[in-house]
Amino acid sequence: MSTAEQLIESRISANHFDTSRRLADGEIEALIRLATKAPSAVNLQNWKFVAVRSDAAKARLLPHAYGQQKVADAAVTFIVCGTLEPHLTLPRSLQPSLDAGLIDAATFDGWVGAARSMYQDNPAFQRDEAIRSASLAAMTLMHAAQARGLVSGPMIGFDPAGVAREFGLAPTDVPAMLVTVGYAAPGNWPQKPRRPVADVLVFA
Amino acid sequence: MSTAEQLIESRISANHFDTSRRLADGEIEALIRLATKAPSAVNLQNWKFVAVRSDAAKARLLPHAYGQQKVADAAVTFIVCGTLEPHLTLPRSLQPSLDAGLIDAATFDGWVGAARSMYQDNPAFQRDEAIRSASLAAMTLMHAAQARGLVSGPMIGFDPAGVAREFGLAPTDVPAMLVTVGYAAPGNWPQKPRRPVADVLVFA
Repeated sequence: MSTAEQLIESRISANHFDTSRRLADGEIEALIRLATKAPSAVNLQNWKFVAVRSDAAKARLLPHAYGQQKVADAAVTFIVCGTLEPHLTLPRSLQPSLDAGLIDAATFDGWVGAARSMYQDNPAFQRDEAIRSASLAAMTLMHAAQARGLVSGPMIGFDPAGVAREFGLAPTDVPAMLVTVGYAAPGNWPQKPRRPVADVLVFA
Repeated sequence: MSTAEQLIESRISANHFDTSRRLADGEIEALIRLATKAPSAVNLQNWKFVAVRSDAAKARLLPHAYGQQKVADAAVTFIVCGTLEPHLTLPRSLQPSLDAGLIDAATFDGWVGAARSMYQDNPAFQRDEAIRSASLAAMTLMHAAQARGLVSGPMIGFDPAGVAREFGLAPTDVPAMLVTVGYAAPGNWPQKPRRPVADVLVFA
């Protein structure tokens, strides 16, 4: 089995973190750089991350995460947001591909136009896309953390409106998940067993 | 840089597949076994995968994917679904953890009850959870494919209602994404550049 496959096999969702070990801001940036290697529809990159890593910010997050101590114990808790109105931010997201000569101006305009048609009058599809892109990035973030010797834990147990207010999120920022990241402390569960593949896979 | 990190760095979204190379059903099962290592809220595992790998099934999928040839060229195209009413399927999903002695009956009952409270009267949250879990599994599937020397491509360009009808999905199955998987043919784009980290990351 390859190292990468082994990483997927062995990832756990951690609840217990070594409170004595922090992450430097550069390490946090490296994790997010990797997270944004996730794909998104027409390269929308409709995501935003708040890295809650100071004691003061953790204390502000804690009540909105229903007092779950892991958001304070982890070196950092990421508020992983997907963003609405992705057609409006797409030109900025595609600019590096245009600059690199990977796509030409006609493709750029075509994709921006297609995104406008898909999203602008469809708030439900915008929300799906926000959750989808944020989740793809969150999973990549968790694999990146594991690859760097860290553990992570995804959380949906938080109050999105409270988090948005507390951290000054834009109305277009949809907090899709919290992801705690840090060094493991003893006491974490092993990976829980899964349903048999035959339960969830159909061949056609 | 670790092998796993390199894998995240180098993943591409493929459009061109070697049509001469198929995947055995056992290889497809191995990919899905890895995909289901993704986390889900209270281990809901609220996902389902249809592996479209026969010529006949690909021909049925093609019009619902707006004629995009890659769904026929790839060795397999997965219809990755998240499932609604996850509180009703949770007991079955948690049974292996109970059987393994990882959780006790009180925890089992507590999680099932909590899931009922969270989801049963909240269809919007059920939909978010379906998209979220399916996306976490889809990203893990793409990393698993890459780890096994394959390439993959996520697609939202398809008609969910048509796909559901054509492949007999249940009303609770939400097709969140198609993911093509196979061996690469020449002509794929390199990974497209991303927005700078400073554009998408805020420290708190």
